[in-house]
Amino acid sequence: LGKSNVAILGFGTVGRSVAHILCDSDFHGLTLTHIFNRNVSRKYADWVPKSVQWTEDLAEVLASDVDVIVELAGGLDPAGDWVRQALTAGKSVVTANKKLIAYRGVELQTLAQQHGCQLLYGAAVAGGVPVIPGLQQGLAGDQILKLEGILNGTCNFILSKMEKGAEFAPVVAEAQAAGYAERDPTEDVDGFDARAKLVILTRIGILADVAPNEISCRSIRNLTATDFAYANDLRCTIRQIARAEVREGQLLASVGPMLVSQSSPLAWSKGTENMVIATGRYGGQTIFSGHGAGGHPTAVAVVSDILTIAHGGSTVSLPARKLVTGGEFRLPHYIRFVVSDRPGIVAEIAGDLAQEDINIRAILQKPDHPADDTAFVVTVEPCRNSQLARALARIQKMDCLLSAPFEMGILSDSPEPHAH
Amino acid sequence: LGKSNVAILGFGTVGRSVAHILCDSDFHGLTLTHIFNRNVSRKYADWVPKSVQWTEDLAEVLASDVDVIVELAGGLDPAGDWVRQALTAGKSVVTANKKLIAYRGVELQTLAQQHGCQLLYGAAVAGGVPVIPGLQQGLAGDQILKLEGILNGTCNFILSKMEKGAEFAPVVAEAQAAGYAERDPTEDVDGFDARAKLVILTRIGILADVAPNEISCRSIRNLTATDFAYANDLRCTIRQIARAEVREGQLLASVGPMLVSQSSPLAWSKGTENMVIATGRYGGQTIFSGHGAGGHPTAVAVVSDILTIAHGGSTVSLPARKLVTGGEFRLPHYIRFVVSDRPGIVAEIAGDLAQEDINIRAILQKPDHPADDTAFVVTVEPCRNSQLARALARIQKMDCLLSAPFEMGILSDSPEPHAH
Repeated sequence: LGKSNVAILGFGTVGRSVAHILCDSDFHGLTLTHIFNRNVSRKYADWVPKSVQWTEDLAEVLASDVDVIVELAGGLDPAGDWVRQALTAGKSVVTANKKLIAYRGVELQTLAQQHGCQLLYGAAVAGGVPVIPGLQQGLAGDQILKLEGILNGTCNFILSKMEKGAEFAPVVAEAQAAGYAERDPTEDVDGFDARAKLVILTRIGILADVAPNEISCRSIRNLTATDFAYANDLRCTIRQIARAEVREGQLLASVGPMLVSQSSPLAWSKGTENMVIATGRYGGQTIFSGHGAGGHPTAVAVVSDILTIAHGGSTVSLPARKLVTGGEFRLPHYIRFVVSDRPGIVAEIAGDLAQEDINIRAILQKPDHPADDTAFVVTVEPCRNSQLARALARIQKMDCLLSAPFEMGILSDSPEPHAH
Repeated sequence: LGKSNVAILGFGTVGRSVAHILCDSDFHGLTLTHIFNRNVSRKYADWVPKSVQWTEDLAEVLASDVDVIVELAGGLDPAGDWVRQALTAGKSVVTANKKLIAYRGVELQTLAQQHGCQLLYGAAVAGGVPVIPGLQQGLAGDQILKLEGILNGTCNFILSKMEKGAEFAPVVAEAQAAGYAERDPTEDVDGFDARAKLVILTRIGILADVAPNEISCRSIRNLTATDFAYANDLRCTIRQIARAEVREGQLLASVGPMLVSQSSPLAWSKGTENMVIATGRYGGQTIFSGHGAGGHPTAVAVVSDILTIAHGGSTVSLPARKLVTGGEFRLPHYIRFVVSDRPGIVAEIAGDLAQEDINIRAILQKPDHPADDTAFVVTVEPCRNSQLARALARIQKMDCLLSAPFEMGILSDSPEPHAH
């Protein structure tokens, strides 16, 4: 027990970090035996021990005495096929592939069970932050009612910079230059990356199966420095929030920009940090926070999973059930209007909101906007998304609007649910 | 797999919460079969299913088909003997007993291994916050270099109240009335409770064996509202900090009041919350936070451990080694003097500090103290405890002092160590 041979599939940033940790010392009985990559010759590194096999042939790896296959190629294909082959060959698999686990995790977990081996993916959500073992093992005894998280470091980097006055486009360019954002930042800024992670957390935390496309995603692209200025007036900041909640047997889940109170732990997260707040029926709020991305932190989660397998450990895998998805959060909202100013605008907007039974909480207008390009903000009391959508559809017809109204929910510091 | 019969030893607050969770629903295959307590008849509760055996006879429990014994009696004896008997009888044990695990955990873990059963104690540190599974499983792949924690909810309750201007004695009385503090608050306020927890975290996180009495403990009793006022001037607050750090092969560990920056996550912890910050060589800082005490949160950790055992899971148990303890932190310090004012006091103190090569950083004096009872504060640049102790021994001879100088370390937001 405790000895394991390890093969790495995919020798990129995380793969190299995993190899570094494994080769650095005789790491608690783990031995790196294979590195698999397409065109593997361009990957050779002289710090890797001579005993390690470099290969482009997966069959060779699977036929060897390797115990654990570490899949770090990412994406659905061919990674999914490799993982399937590995499990079928009776090899346990550790992966950081959130997309694969979000889309095919249930099927692959079943396959692992059928072949008496394990599939662990602690690195798939929040990198080095042990949210997955925390939920799967540490909070298994609770009933998790709500998950709120900052799951995408790129968005958090962008939003923490915008908080200080920058506009979206230059910050994205900066994030790209720093290697935090892809050339095409769609996956990050439009919420798809966080959504895949939320699917995984919802499955293991709330024990509810939800498909990625059942979760609504809203982009952070439409945020402006003006929104952060108004947020600050409301003692809030803006974060990309991934959240899931069970209410009356329905699952409510969404990803997108939200106002969060400056006193909320979610506002503490700066730069590329990740954070998850789990609210349990019995244990109340538990917060996990740390480095959600980067080679080394992600590698820590990968190596921890390898150690868990090597030491005969396994995670508590409670069955998830299918819940009706798509219920509506009842939330206060922030709505930003950009208009060419004329008398009566506020009255018209207030009227359209009132027709949907939406109460205005506050109207904010900075004095320094030119009259022909005025941004002002209306916050409203808690209402359903559908109510707001109907009101905005009506408002959108106003001739004075220079762009579509931009709205986002305000995350309320609701009192924690208490067990009776 | 997944079915387990559970016996509870000790039917107090946590025991009742565990029973509630287990009886509330068919909790993932767990069945409560026995409740053991001395004078058990005074414990009867009608909401417990008829099938549960109430008993004062441990032998009866051990002879039954129970799979997991939950020890919630607390203290070293007789709880230690009960756990030993249970493990020897081949029953896995789940316990929330920090004292037992701190003092006898290594021996009991060995006994568990010899009898092919498990000993889990996730509830022993930080109650419902999954710090133990987080370190043991989630961060097993890192090398933890430093642990800093707020591990005692009672102290945190007291200190968060004092932060708002209250004095120590009335807040302790309030905590006692609210049930947060014992009639004799020694274990909490003098640091022994946090020290036991730090011993456990150091063993599983830093993989270093340390005995409780090797860790220096300082009381929070000597803190006054004045200290919080001065701390605030320094943009700090005061927390009971339990910390352990490996440096040059030596273990440095301590428990006691410290100044922490208001911008540090450690300052966010309010009321009875607990927090642990683990700093790893590869993964950097990871933060765990939540409810560290109370029946329900503690019960969540207990039930999670029972589920882990029932599902055939086990934790990664890496061997700890003995390190030389008692190295000295090099820290900036806060020193509060209460004097009957006369010319030359600061010059004398500065001279005594200079003789030990200690540099003064700042001298703070609030204007509203009477001359015959003046409290002022000196902060000094990083120095060793021994240097400071020698300087204070000399200063203590000054005739103008109305009480012994009170000093505490200032926790610096040191840059995170980075892996090469």
